[in-house]
Amino acid sequence: MLYFECDYNNGCHPEILKKLAETNDIYQPGYGYDCFSLSAKEKIRKTFACPDADIFFLCGGTQTNAVVISSMLRDYQGVVAAETGHIGTHESGAIEYTGHKVLPLPQHDGKIDAAELKSYVSAYYADGNYDHMVFPGMVYISFPTELGTLYSKAELQAIHAVCSEYGMPLFIDGARLGYGLMSSECDIPVEEFAELCDVFYIGGTKVGALCGEAVVFPRGNAPEHFFSMVKQHGALFAKGRVCGVQFDTLFTDDLYFNISRNAISKAESLKKILKEKEYPFFFETPTNQQFVIAENSELEKLREKVSFGFWDKYDDSHTVIRFCTSWVTSDDDLLRLEETL
Amino acid sequence: MLYFECDYNNGCHPEILKKLAETNDIYQPGYGYDCFSLSAKEKIRKTFACPDADIFFLCGGTQTNAVVISSMLRDYQGVVAAETGHIGTHESGAIEYTGHKVLPLPQHDGKIDAAELKSYVSAYYADGNYDHMVFPGMVYISFPTELGTLYSKAELQAIHAVCSEYGMPLFIDGARLGYGLMSSECDIPVEEFAELCDVFYIGGTKVGALCGEAVVFPRGNAPEHFFSMVKQHGALFAKGRVCGVQFDTLFTDDLYFNISRNAISKAESLKKILKEKEYPFFFETPTNQQFVIAENSELEKLREKVSFGFWDKYDDSHTVIRFCTSWVTSDDDLLRLEETL
Amino acid sequence: MLYFECDYNNGCHPEILKKLAETNDIYQPGYGYDCFSLSAKEKIRKTFACPDADIFFLCGGTQTNAVVISSMLRDYQGVVAAETGHIGTHESGAIEYTGHKVLPLPQHDGKIDAAELKSYVSAYYADGNYDHMVFPGMVYISFPTELGTLYSKAELQAIHAVCSEYGMPLFIDGARLGYGLMSSECDIPVEEFAELCDVFYIGGTKVGALCGEAVVFPRGNAPEHFFSMVKQHGALFAKGRVCGVQFDTLFTDDLYFNISRNAISKAESLKKILKEKEYPFFFETPTNQQFVIAENSELEKLREKVSFGFWDKYDDSHTVIRFCTSWVTSDDDLLRLEETL
Amino acid sequence: MLYFECDYNNGCHPEILKKLAETNDIYQPGYGYDCFSLSAKEKIRKTFACPDADIFFLCGGTQTNAVVISSMLRDYQGVVAAETGHIGTHESGAIEYTGHKVLPLPQHDGKIDAAELKSYVSAYYADGNYDHMVFPGMVYISFPTELGTLYSKAELQAIHAVCSEYGMPLFIDGARLGYGLMSSECDIPVEEFAELCDVFYIGGTKVGALCGEAVVFPRGNAPEHFFSMVKQHGALFAKGRVCGVQFDTLFTDDLYFNISRNAISKAESLKKILKEKEYPFFFETPTNQQFVIAENSELEKLREKVSFGFWDKYDDSHTVIRFCTSWVTSDDDLLRLEETL
Repeated sequence: MLYFECDYNNGCHPEILKKLAETNDIYQPGYGYDCFSLSAKEKIRKTFACPDADIFFLCGGTQTNAVVISSMLRDYQGVVAAETGHIGTHESGAIEYTGHKVLPLPQHDGKIDAAELKSYVSAYYADGNYDHMVFPGMVYISFPTELGTLYSKAELQAIHAVCSEYGMPLFIDGARLGYGLMSSECDIPVEEFAELCDVFYIGGTKVGALCGEAVVFPRGNAPEHFFSMVKQHGALFAKGRVCGVQFDTLFTDDLYFNISRNAISKAESLKKILKEKEYPFFFETPTNQQFVIAENSELEKLREKVSFGFWDKYDDSHTVIRFCTSWVTSDDDLLRLEETL
Repeated sequence: MLYFECDYNNGCHPEILKKLAETNDIYQPGYGYDCFSLSAKEKIRKTFACPDADIFFLCGGTQTNAVVISSMLRDYQGVVAAETGHIGTHESGAIEYTGHKVLPLPQHDGKIDAAELKSYVSAYYADGNYDHMVFPGMVYISFPTELGTLYSKAELQAIHAVCSEYGMPLFIDGARLGYGLMSSECDIPVEEFAELCDVFYIGGTKVGALCGEAVVFPRGNAPEHFFSMVKQHGALFAKGRVCGVQFDTLFTDDLYFNISRNAISKAESLKKILKEKEYPFFFETPTNQQFVIAENSELEKLREKVSFGFWDKYDDSHTVIRFCTSWVTSDDDLLRLEETL
Repeated sequence: MLYFECDYNNGCHPEILKKLAETNDIYQPGYGYDCFSLSAKEKIRKTFACPDADIFFLCGGTQTNAVVISSMLRDYQGVVAAETGHIGTHESGAIEYTGHKVLPLPQHDGKIDAAELKSYVSAYYADGNYDHMVFPGMVYISFPTELGTLYSKAELQAIHAVCSEYGMPLFIDGARLGYGLMSSECDIPVEEFAELCDVFYIGGTKVGALCGEAVVFPRGNAPEHFFSMVKQHGALFAKGRVCGVQFDTLFTDDLYFNISRNAISKAESLKKILKEKEYPFFFETPTNQQFVIAENSELEKLREKVSFGFWDKYDDSHTVIRFCTSWVTSDDDLLRLEETL
Repeated sequence: MLYFECDYNNGCHPEILKKLAETNDIYQPGYGYDCFSLSAKEKIRKTFACPDADIFFLCGGTQTNAVVISSMLRDYQGVVAAETGHIGTHESGAIEYTGHKVLPLPQHDGKIDAAELKSYVSAYYADGNYDHMVFPGMVYISFPTELGTLYSKAELQAIHAVCSEYGMPLFIDGARLGYGLMSSECDIPVEEFAELCDVFYIGGTKVGALCGEAVVFPRGNAPEHFFSMVKQHGALFAKGRVCGVQFDTLFTDDLYFNISRNAISKAESLKKILKEKEYPFFFETPTNQQFVIAENSELEKLREKVSFGFWDKYDDSHTVIRFCTSWVTSDDDLLRLEETL
């Protein structure tokens, strides 16, 4: 069996296991005050060139989105997101559960457009009844998006400018951040990323960790008592070292980005294979997710040998399917895929 | 330095690290559908003699309490708990954040009393204005309690009977369940525990795991779509195997209870030492937490050599401090403590 | 000045004032147990031919929507509504504040379509990840809609059938119910309305009352302890008589429908006038709201003599404006409007 | 039958009915922008000597408490209240429904004590785990209290000083404010009341109005977009004039305080009668509620002629009952009560 279904179906990078074992007997305080977490934070600050950043480790992505968003909004505000945004689609209403509306904006290949955002917000404030409506209090985007696409630096700057104009913090969901920043089409240097937004998170779960995400408020701008809200949401590990050790490892010797690069180079090979095999692309992306159209009649047989993701119905006889590479995908996996397809 | 501050300040049992390494390369589906989770659930069902149990793995204790309680209550209901109950004191208002009141009952050594519970609930329904008040919708207790004490089988039966009479599910927080069930004073066989309540959780974090708790609905009585509510709360690991592998290991060859027994036997030695050293007990318990009274003047010096927990002010010149053993405490730790005190 | 801006800008029907005065000195219990509320409920049960109905009086429309919807949904469910539905647009996120998502469906003249609803819900359950998404737990529609349009009996039956098939209660927001049922285009007899849904509310505020709405669960199907949830939301008048007296008056001698008919007949005259004056209709409706297109250059002058509602920008030089009649609109008002336009 | 059960079992002051009738035909904008509301606000500002006050009219007391408290707290904060405070006892968990814990403080005759408050808050911040607990974010008291007692000016000043020291706004629930300020034992001039707190509400429902409460932020210190949060909670009347006309009437020619004085002088007569009849006082108060102890054997007979409130069980053969006067209580009512007891 070949596995291309998604990027979180195996364990973690061996280096992490090694570090967990090495540090296992070291007593350390809980709740993120352990030396591994402190070290990891320092490394992240350096990597992203934001020396004043407030950094927190949370247990998972949905949790992270809910805590960040609810802690930054006032009761009367909602969060603007692409209609394909993860918070509006596949998080079981976690944002609404905190009392806030997700305000959908049209998506273009999974991305929102700065001009459309501005038009939406300015129309909002121009409406005579705007105070009977949900205020756009912040903006959520994903990098890469749920469709594997990327914002350019200019696009992010334009969105951030609109956000600043209207007092809306910009939050970037980086569940797959490494795969975005290491894409050959990404024009954003790692050390310039943090200044393009007001808060972002570095995904661990999908980029080599067992679990955990790192929230970064780049300019020391965490909401007051963010720690207590993390606890209130149940997103705080008692053994904070679980995240500390993992992120410390990932941000040592550039491991996070090295393994991200692997996913990207394997995705390039994957695209070649899919083209050779004449699968029509529904969506060809610069990151680790590729979407092609397959005949329904072939799917059954294909599934016996390869695991992939079902994305959407295309038409009555075709389906959009997703192939994912990850930090763990090997040349051998691709070779075998080529033989199998 | 000697570490007796709490039971979650080191890593995890080496057997777990070993199993994480062994299984690391095995591809498995996410969200708890991995083979390790399925196997762990089967083992837990056998251990607790509840073959029909619904079992879910969540990322932490506060999270677990919030999900279980909010999913079992209707909007107009609250949860009854001892005034020392963890949900009412040290979870940053996580229960209230889900919209529900914690209804405090007097505590006796950390425990609630069945007769007082009955009296509270019957007085509630006898009140002419009860429908302007918060309905007692379920009961939360901890086993062991936050003070390290234990309910006897008869006490649990009595509480459960009151719960059943008034249609209130009984939820047992087992953050330290192993330390309770393995106490020499516990008169509840493991295989009879599940029938004494309507839902309980088996603590992993404080009993040898890196993270994770297992919620057990013993009679297949999970609320409908509990899975989606776990997701909604952000308590669902994408890599469900993280909990699966850990609990599968803990429930293989009785590991969970073996290491719990270690904490208990070490706690017995600890009590002996504290008595020899003539520390007055504030609270002598049958589990892994012991509370003694120390002179403030000595604390500073003691802290240089031993880490312990500050519990409460006793009087102007004394403080209640807590010593904890755990699955990892060794004979050598105790020997050195004896020499140090 | 002529007033056609909306249907809640004057006081209440004089008959209500009279009854408030007559009953003022009668001592009655609070919270809806007064004799006026009981009498009003009995009259509503008769009028709508639902002898077993549970009926509650709440203070306003947004409140009513929030209480009904949150009390009928489980945590993991959302409410389906037309994208123009009041709950999704002009209630400041009141539904999300209770933790539930509003799931938007395309609107056609303000209405949802049974086939589209079915297609949406069946696609939902067909999605492999449906338990990571928000369950469609109930359906909300307005009668008349926010655009003044009406569902036919067949349309309601079709929607209700889909709702029943998927276990989703159908809730009808009747903020302007009288204006809908008394429209000459309405093919639903009053006594058949209740059986077409699972819960509806009879709007008082916009149909002659000072305040208050009557929620009707036609088949005695109110959620358990609905009263306490009304109280919890702060929607319960201590002086329940305020609503009791008003609804008792409105449902005596057919007053509610008589005054509704006035709004409808005046709306017919209004349409005639608007047509004579050659205002292009943006939306010609069978109820009390009419939408026409006006030149921006004329608006300023018009506003000096007539109050109307601004609905939307039409194009750069035109605006959609709304004219409303109500139970209080007189022939004289229309005569003067004709002279003014 | 004689009515002393509570102060909201009749209609409203006739002057209000008269004003409702007089203004009924005047067209006015909705949502509180009507001329009556504007006039009422101006009069309240003058009466309470707070020219910069932000004032809002809401539909009822529970609603008001929920909106004020939730809009002034951050997610991690709770509200401190006497254990007998209305928000913690008889509002069906309305505060918790907004996500916030009510932090109970001991009560003394229904009041909290400044020193105990300070001790509670300072102990909170001294606790090493305070950020795992619910922050005391504001303080709620009632004036008069739920037991009819009053804070002295010095007591309020002391409480307010503690509040200011710890950054906790002080909110006074004035459901019966008139009865408090007009008590002969009250040492707070009306025009000095506002400076003693950060927000208060003037109760209408229990002091002569049909419904409605006026929230006052004395120093223009309303939370940003408070209006939208009122709407979000469903506490906003579309016909804002309902409150506007009522409060404008109540604050014309000192009506609010004149009718409050009536309740107080009648309560003085009531106390005399109860003493003559040798009812032991459970609680003798300076306001309109009096609590006496009655033999259970007499209650049945008494109830046939007089309505009163059941407060609490006193012992197996006695009950605490409450007698209330109000703005509408007459000399004749008391004469007849004297004859009846």
